[in-house]
Amino acid sequence: MNNHRNHYRQIFNYSAGPSLLPDTVLEQIERDLWDWNGTKSSIMEIGHRTDLFIDILNETKDILRKIMGIPNNYHILFLHGGARGQFAAVPLNLLNNKQADYINSGYWSKLAIDEAKKYGKINIACSGEKYNFNKLDEQNKWNLNPNASYVHMTYNETIKGVEYPFIPDTGDIPLVVDTTSNILSKEIDVTKFGIIYAGAQKNLGIAGVTIVIIRDDLLKKANNHCPSILDYSHQAKVNSFGNTPSTFPIYVSNLVAKWVDSVGGVAKIQKNNQTKAKKVYDCIDSSEFYINHVDKSWRSMVNVHFYVHDSKLENVFLEEAYKANLYYLKGHASSKGIRANMYNAAPIEYATKLVEFMTYFENKYG
Amino acid sequence: MNNHRNHYRQIFNYSAGPSLLPDTVLEQIERDLWDWNGTKSSIMEIGHRTDLFIDILNETKDILRKIMGIPNNYHILFLHGGARGQFAAVPLNLLNNKQADYINSGYWSKLAIDEAKKYGKINIACSGEKYNFNKLDEQNKWNLNPNASYVHMTYNETIKGVEYPFIPDTGDIPLVVDTTSNILSKEIDVTKFGIIYAGAQKNLGIAGVTIVIIRDDLLKKANNHCPSILDYSHQAKVNSFGNTPSTFPIYVSNLVAKWVDSVGGVAKIQKNNQTKAKKVYDCIDSSEFYINHVDKSWRSMVNVHFYVHDSKLENVFLEEAYKANLYYLKGHASSKGIRANMYNAAPIEYATKLVEFMTYFENKYG
Repeated sequence: MNNHRNHYRQIFNYSAGPSLLPDTVLEQIERDLWDWNGTKSSIMEIGHRTDLFIDILNETKDILRKIMGIPNNYHILFLHGGARGQFAAVPLNLLNNKQADYINSGYWSKLAIDEAKKYGKINIACSGEKYNFNKLDEQNKWNLNPNASYVHMTYNETIKGVEYPFIPDTGDIPLVVDTTSNILSKEIDVTKFGIIYAGAQKNLGIAGVTIVIIRDDLLKKANNHCPSILDYSHQAKVNSFGNTPSTFPIYVSNLVAKWVDSVGGVAKIQKNNQTKAKKVYDCIDSSEFYINHVDKSWRSMVNVHFYVHDSKLENVFLEEAYKANLYYLKGHASSKGIRANMYNAAPIEYATKLVEFMTYFENKYG
Repeated sequence: MNNHRNHYRQIFNYSAGPSLLPDTVLEQIERDLWDWNGTKSSIMEIGHRTDLFIDILNETKDILRKIMGIPNNYHILFLHGGARGQFAAVPLNLLNNKQADYINSGYWSKLAIDEAKKYGKINIACSGEKYNFNKLDEQNKWNLNPNASYVHMTYNETIKGVEYPFIPDTGDIPLVVDTTSNILSKEIDVTKFGIIYAGAQKNLGIAGVTIVIIRDDLLKKANNHCPSILDYSHQAKVNSFGNTPSTFPIYVSNLVAKWVDSVGGVAKIQKNNQTKAKKVYDCIDSSEFYINHVDKSWRSMVNVHFYVHDSKLENVFLEEAYKANLYYLKGHASSKGIRANMYNAAPIEYATKLVEFMTYFENKYG
């Protein structure tokens, strides 16, 4: 840990999101607070139509293109409304009176499906329900509709920690992916997707801005009932100025994208995430005291969920962890248990510290 | 001006929005940056479902209730998507296969009308077009439909600086108002409205959060095609957690609302705004060098727009003003001219300084 972390950071923040920011990002926010970029104002006080703000918005797109390898035939939008807004925007823009395929991999997929059903016929091409959402069938068993307008997947389910080990091949049918919890967490081939969207508050900044990466042939199809703030072709045409963009959150995303680039890009981030996840899963697997039910190849790299075998000990675990400065480890209300969210900004020490505590706790109560 | 302003604030920021924040708000943001409320984290890193964040969200509602006099039968929501999102949300929630009345007072009204037309039949009950949008007819000449589901008005048009001098009486038909540019700028009787909405970035914080104040009998009417993020009854039921709320922007709104309370409430803010506006309008009216076309009783208290009689001098005015540290005075692209936006956070010095410069400039070139 660097000096700044030693000075300011006294706890470990495993929040599911909004979540930890890199130290250097908070440091830059602090430096810029009263005088951003020579404006003698905070960036929060600067109009979105100034050249300086437009520059930072465009720079953010350039950095994302570089670190994610986004080709020029994809637009990058900065919208409002989070992934939940996209649950409506995707069918409102793409469904076009046809049918769409959805893959049900758990909690967030189901919410996307419920919202899409407002707008047309939805086919569940595959569901993890029979596996208690601990994995999905291989793609050759999916019931994909050759006439679907798109296929929707949730790349990583945060609640139980379930993440696709592969990118489905949907041929000419656009693949739409919710990457809110794992954007920039590993290298992906953008060209395999028609739309990539993500709320920023886990891996790309703070709550209040949503990134949409969309292939240009998917523009110009919005339903007449689509609110203009969610209309992809309109927002692409006006460079995300269809309403006042979330200027400060976009600035934070700019700093986070620069941080990813500066530490070695997505490849390096992926390596760190693999290291962190392996440490905690190894600890779980080497013990009968902790349990994780997710199929090993489907385990999430960023959300590690587990139960204490004796469930009466879970509250004791959370209380003692809190006293040891390990915060926000409680599982989601729908799954209970313990959940360690270690997104990109979490240093490897987040995993070693947690494993240290898990080992101590098992020795004490096991 | 206080010491902090002397230390940090070297320019005058007349931005139309996002715009100036009170010094004390930026000071608090600075103090909280690395350790908000004892969390040893930035508020940007704190989950929205923590007790601490829920407390601040609820506290913000309490302060708004106090300073605006919002009765208990009104809900307060913190949504995404800005006023433009509300241009769709209002008809999607209230139109209910009926007709709505819209008052066209200028640029923003027209955008609200265009968006509403996607969802049903819209009646323009009054238009300022024949007055070149420098005023509206008195209400007894409006063509209100007794069966309308609601009446929509834009309280203050920012581009030319046109603000209602009265609140229309729409009887039992809910009056819906866009107050993005003048919320908290003057005392209003909330009970005269069914819905009051505002993007926060001018008078109540920063871009990324939208406040909706809605009477409870107007919930539960959303159209089936309404995205859940814009569904008032859903968002009221889940306390604005229908998607991850914009936590940092809500925190800034909390600080701004506390600032309004601490300086003497909306009555005091209103008095300051009247003083500022009068200074600049008096300067315009006492001269033949500057021109304002807006009907005197319809002049905006927060956006003072004017032309230099010799339009060739406008760019010179802007350049020299900039050198004198008066920033962002250029009028909107649709109206040109000069525009001084002096929202609540602008101290009275913003008016005296501008008048000083206007007098100097007239003496030099007049």
